[in-house]
Amino acid sequence: MKLDELNSLDGAAFVNLLGGLFEHSPWVAAQVWPKRPFASWRELHTCMVETVRQAAREKQLALLRAHPELAGREAQAGTLTASSTREQASIGLNALTRDEMAQIARSNQEYLARFGFPFIVAVRNHTREGIFRELERRLANDPQSEFAMALEQVYAIAQIRLEALT
Amino acid sequence: MKLDELNSLDGAAFVNLLGGLFEHSPWVAAQVWPKRPFASWRELHTCMVETVRQAAREKQLALLRAHPELAGREAQAGTLTASSTREQASIGLNALTRDEMAQIARSNQEYLARFGFPFIVAVRNHTREGIFRELERRLANDPQSEFAMALEQVYAIAQIRLEALT
Repeated sequence: MKLDELNSLDGAAFVNLLGGLFEHSPWVAAQVWPKRPFASWRELHTCMVETVRQAAREKQLALLRAHPELAGREAQAGTLTASSTREQASIGLNALTRDEMAQIARSNQEYLARFGFPFIVAVRNHTREGIFRELERRLANDPQSEFAMALEQVYAIAQIRLEALT
Repeated sequence: MKLDELNSLDGAAFVNLLGGLFEHSPWVAAQVWPKRPFASWRELHTCMVETVRQAAREKQLALLRAHPELAGREAQAGTLTASSTREQASIGLNALTRDEMAQIARSNQEYLARFGFPFIVAVRNHTREGIFRELERRLANDPQSEFAMALEQVYAIAQIRLEALT
C-alpha cells in the first residue's frame, strides 16, 4: 500500500487495516486516524506509540494483557490471531521439544504471576535462544522496569506488523 | 567454572574474571564481590543488575557511554574489547555492505546526538534484521524510555557474557 492511499482512507477502513497492529487493541488506530496525513510510515508508527505512551496505565495494562502467552494455551488451542500465529511459527515456537515446552510453560506461569501480564517479545527481532534468554532475564526485573520493557516490545511488534503492510 | 570456585575467589581474581561483563566497568563486579556466596549464576547476575540500577544516574550514563558504536569507529580501528568483537562478528556486523555501513553510520550518529550515548543492543539475542529495525525504532523513543531500554540491553549483554563463563 502507498502512503497516500493510507492517508485517504476513511476511519472505518483505516481501523480495519491497522487495528491489528496492537494486539486486540484497535483503539490505538482509531485514536491516530484524526492525525492523518502522515508524512511517512515511521511517523505513523511513532504517532501510535505516542498514543499508547499517553494512555492511562490501566489501558496500557489491558493492552499487555491482550497478548497471548508465548507458545502457550492459545497457540495450542489454535486461537491466536493470524499475526501471532505467523510470528510464533517463524521462530519454531510451534515445534518445541517436550522439555522446552515444559520450561517455557513454567517460566510463562512464573512471569504472569509476578507481573500480571504475559511475557511479550518481538519474536521476529530475536533469535530463538535470545527469546528463552530474555524470558529468564526479564523474570528477575522489578515490576516497573518490566512494565516499560513489555511496552517497548509491543511497539516493536507493531513496527514489524506495519512493515508487512508497506 | 563451578559456582563454588567462583564463591571462593578473592576480590582481585573475582573482578579480574567478571570485570568485563559490564563494558569497561569493573566497578560492578567489585561492588558485588562482598555479597558472595551466590546461590546461582542467575542470582549473581541479578545482584549485578541491582547494583547498576541503584547506581547514580551519572554512573549509569558513564556505563552506557563506555559501549562502542555498533559496527562503528572502534570496530573499524580494531579497538573493541574481545567480547564486543566476538559479539559484533557473530551477526555479520563486521561484513556489512557499503550501503548498510552508510545507513548504520548515519543512524548511529543520529542516535548519539539525540541521546548522548551510543546505540546498545544485545547482538546475540537478535536477528540481524532485528538489530537494524530496533535501531530505527529506538531512535524515535523519548530520552527517558530509551535510557531505560539501553540499560536493559546492557543487562542482557552481561547475562550472555556470564553464560559464556559457566
